[in-house]
Amino acid sequence: MRLALTIAYDGSAFYGSAYQPRLRTVEGDLASCLADMGVIERTAGGVVHLASRTDRGVSAAGNVCAFDSSLGPESLLPGLVHTLEDIWVTGAAVVDDRFHPRHAASKTYRYYLPQQGLEVESMRQAAQIFVGQHDFSAFAKLDGRNPERTVTDVGVEQRDGLLVIEVTGTSFLWNQVRRMVAAVAAAGRGDITPEEMAQMLAGASCRDPGIASPEYLLLARVSYRPAIAWQPVSGSARFLERRVADMAARHALFVDMHTLATGATSK
Amino acid sequence: MRLALTIAYDGSAFYGSAYQPRLRTVEGDLASCLADMGVIERTAGGVVHLASRTDRGVSAAGNVCAFDSSLGPESLLPGLVHTLEDIWVTGAAVVDDRFHPRHAASKTYRYYLPQQGLEVESMRQAAQIFVGQHDFSAFAKLDGRNPERTVTDVGVEQRDGLLVIEVTGTSFLWNQVRRMVAAVAAAGRGDITPEEMAQMLAGASCRDPGIASPEYLLLARVSYRPAIAWQPVSGSARFLERRVADMAARHALFVDMHTLATGATSK
Repeated sequence: MRLALTIAYDGSAFYGSAYQPRLRTVEGDLASCLADMGVIERTAGGVVHLASRTDRGVSAAGNVCAFDSSLGPESLLPGLVHTLEDIWVTGAAVVDDRFHPRHAASKTYRYYLPQQGLEVESMRQAAQIFVGQHDFSAFAKLDGRNPERTVTDVGVEQRDGLLVIEVTGTSFLWNQVRRMVAAVAAAGRGDITPEEMAQMLAGASCRDPGIASPEYLLLARVSYRPAIAWQPVSGSARFLERRVADMAARHALFVDMHTLATGATSK
Repeated sequence: MRLALTIAYDGSAFYGSAYQPRLRTVEGDLASCLADMGVIERTAGGVVHLASRTDRGVSAAGNVCAFDSSLGPESLLPGLVHTLEDIWVTGAAVVDDRFHPRHAASKTYRYYLPQQGLEVESMRQAAQIFVGQHDFSAFAKLDGRNPERTVTDVGVEQRDGLLVIEVTGTSFLWNQVRRMVAAVAAAGRGDITPEEMAQMLAGASCRDPGIASPEYLLLARVSYRPAIAWQPVSGSARFLERRVADMAARHALFVDMHTLATGATSK
């Protein structure tokens, strides 16, 4: 049968999601764990299919993987949950044999960046340029695929001194979200105008807005039509919660380091 | 002249604070930076003196270093602030030639841990056992030094789902704070009673409470009597603020990862 799983992972632990020989990847860890359990036969690339290839350093709350399994979810999941490290399996579903996770209805990414020095309204204006169907050649690393993509929504939200940029589309080119984020941030600094961004998108300007660091990018969710009835996998939640609590402790330590070292009052 | 500096650092970047050949340490980075600037002649250990030796992975908001300098603070600090990485110089003072930073009036450490599953009142009771002058042999890695130490205060505060344990004393043995924290946490889990801790401190029990992970320990401040009139060094504050903002972005990403992946509502 074909099984699909929703997975979260800490991108800082991996050389990206797609299989690479001799490097730690999300696909590689899933495949070798499944092979060790006797669920799949080969551990090379292409046995476990992923909805999104995330770059090295990029994290996910809800990427989707699928594979043909000799075991059902009940037999498979406890071992998978307890063996995987830095990957948390949060949902499972038995899917049609023809299901490939890449054929998603939409994918949503979130990017987190300090607000300091960024003007939010300029960023919101700049972000709107991307909405619609465009040739995203100026905002991607091209790899021979059709550079036309549809972005359905780009939002810029303020939260606790941070800006969260949320981008939704049907699919994305290589580095596209990180390059869009870099351009929106440049607009927030006043380094680029919405007009220049529109010219870049139209191919009438060859300015390079750069690329945002991967460690602040999260693949938030992948949606399918018809929707998949994910069964929650509870075992992973506790491990993920522990990791988040550890991160909260490190964050509190750094906030105090800043406050104590500079005499600044905590915000 | 002898200069003293207050320094903050990210312990995860260093193999501890004390000089070790061929390993990155806080003392080593300071010494090689000062040597490159022609301020000191040798880069080996013992040229730059530190108030506290912090273990590998332990961070500081206010450790203190001192060294004999051929340059005054005005000539020295800009280069130091811009060259050092993961170390932030936040204050400077010209001190008496006999000043050694180790001779502090008090040192304060803070430890950050998730509250989940820990009973605060038990931890507060357990923490009080340590206050006063005791032989801390059962809570330290002994290195031939007199194991008697004076702890003046241990507090356990709740903050946003975390517990912050603050320990103040005149000086500490090797690993002492991390072993005290592990014992207090064990009391919070109900694994050890305050009576057992008192017996351990009296040498009447050989139970091992373990040792807390270094990455959540912060050397908060070091105080001297008479107090040193630190001149603020403003250049570093901006770099440290940037680092804290980046950490806040990573923290927000992980909170969303947990919320989105498990369907939990954010706290």
